[in-house]
Amino acid sequence: MSFKITILGSSGAVPAYGRHPTAQLVEIQNRYFLVDCGEAAQMQLMRLQANFHRINHIFISHLHGDHYLGLMGLIFTMHLQRRINELHIYSHRGLDEIITAHLRYSRSAPNFRIVFHHLEKGLKQIIYEDDALTVETIPLSHKIRCSGFLFKEKTKPRRIDKSKLPQGLLIQQVAGLKNGHDIRDESGAILYSNESLTLPPRKSRSYAYCSDTIFDEGLVDQLRSIDLLYHEATFLTDEESKAKDTKHSTAKQAAQIARLAAVDRLLLGHFSARYKDLAPILEEAKSIFHNTELAIEGEEFVIQD
Amino acid sequence: MSFKITILGSSGAVPAYGRHPTAQLVEIQNRYFLVDCGEAAQMQLMRLQANFHRINHIFISHLHGDHYLGLMGLIFTMHLQRRINELHIYSHRGLDEIITAHLRYSRSAPNFRIVFHHLEKGLKQIIYEDDALTVETIPLSHKIRCSGFLFKEKTKPRRIDKSKLPQGLLIQQVAGLKNGHDIRDESGAILYSNESLTLPPRKSRSYAYCSDTIFDEGLVDQLRSIDLLYHEATFLTDEESKAKDTKHSTAKQAAQIARLAAVDRLLLGHFSARYKDLAPILEEAKSIFHNTELAIEGEEFVIQD
Repeated sequence: MSFKITILGSSGAVPAYGRHPTAQLVEIQNRYFLVDCGEAAQMQLMRLQANFHRINHIFISHLHGDHYLGLMGLIFTMHLQRRINELHIYSHRGLDEIITAHLRYSRSAPNFRIVFHHLEKGLKQIIYEDDALTVETIPLSHKIRCSGFLFKEKTKPRRIDKSKLPQGLLIQQVAGLKNGHDIRDESGAILYSNESLTLPPRKSRSYAYCSDTIFDEGLVDQLRSIDLLYHEATFLTDEESKAKDTKHSTAKQAAQIARLAAVDRLLLGHFSARYKDLAPILEEAKSIFHNTELAIEGEEFVIQD
Repeated sequence: MSFKITILGSSGAVPAYGRHPTAQLVEIQNRYFLVDCGEAAQMQLMRLQANFHRINHIFISHLHGDHYLGLMGLIFTMHLQRRINELHIYSHRGLDEIITAHLRYSRSAPNFRIVFHHLEKGLKQIIYEDDALTVETIPLSHKIRCSGFLFKEKTKPRRIDKSKLPQGLLIQQVAGLKNGHDIRDESGAILYSNESLTLPPRKSRSYAYCSDTIFDEGLVDQLRSIDLLYHEATFLTDEESKAKDTKHSTAKQAAQIARLAAVDRLLLGHFSARYKDLAPILEEAKSIFHNTELAIEGEEFVIQD
């Protein structure tokens, strides 16, 4: 079952060297989420031939332009391409006013309903939930209200061990096995115990998106042992004071968070326009946390079952 | 002296096949103007290595997203790159409210002053003037308030005919010649007539930008005999009723306007996402007006002196 992050943009505030502002497409079990939506995100989705009409939920971390300016273009295109499904947008306060102003002056009433969900500053809240996963906010410390997002699969059903399955079971009995029940006779006595016919569920995977943020050890608890951590790495360590002033992080700091939280993999992005070559950023992080990769546009990061 | 239009975007409302929404960089005698500013215009400017800090005046035809959604990203980048010069933005009402909302929620106060100039619906007005040129609005009929822009060089000074220039003239006397004066002696008698030492001024060049508009013969008077006409050509003739419904033009209609106005050259753009291949659009227009070209991104259209 899919769990895949596709990088649409990896630049910091100023796009450079062909790198686009931040945006990611997150696909989990055939649900499609957009995480931040920097300028030209719609063109990046088109370039990657992603069907963006399947995106029903867009999570915006904060209202700095490089994280949401692609949203209006995407909305207009969805409208022109006759989208009808509701579009849910999660952001800190203000985006509804901005979007409404754009729509008012273009005299465009979208064919579809836009549902705004306001994020609360400084809280860890489950803002999305379905039968397979939850999305929880991660409070980030940046220059303005800012939240990261933690995607977590729910506990999965146990897996039937086909090699051990007796003949002639009813569909309801098999479904019961997946949900952890035993198979019993009419009197209620156990015919087959659940453990004897099933294997443990596949692991529940998790992805955390942390952009933009100052180095903050307070994040560690919420990120502990997740499978993939995206953490911004705007600067190298020689710009650490600049990072602090602008409430961003260095590659080393991102790696320190990954190490402290004992995550499985680290993904770096939000690269400053001062860095044409990103190899030093990767190298700096790897010296602290080896299992690190760069968020290169067009690349997909899969979390295996 | 420069007079050059660089195409940054040529797509209609929905970007497609790598074509970006409408934006053009107009350079006239070392002044730089941006005409419309579709999404990702800043990236296009970067790609073409244009120094966009020299742009002090931005003309927005109307408030459909494909004509202005790149503006906020450009403004944020100008701010981050420490622009200090005033930026003048000309548009129909609403853009100031939209830009102000973006700035408010990002808590960004630009280092430079943004001066908004409101265009009036349905009027031909000179909205920009300096010693070398004027910019005049062209009333266009579209779904919302919309104006084109007519760039016209002012009459230029006469040119000194160096082969005929006598020795020993004073700088003031040469300047006087350029301004049409004769050279006189102390008593006021003509020593050399202006005509005998000068050539006529170079021609005053003109460029008209017409996007978006329904086919409108009312435009012809204002466009008569200009050097270069950009006219939208969203559709082919087989979609003429669609063009009428959406208040756009076909390639044939654009060519008819060019022919009626007896312009020198025609440039087509704002191509619908339904056309991957633009050759039929060019062909259709050429059958009516031969001197037609397509607005291909990255290409420069120069009007010679």
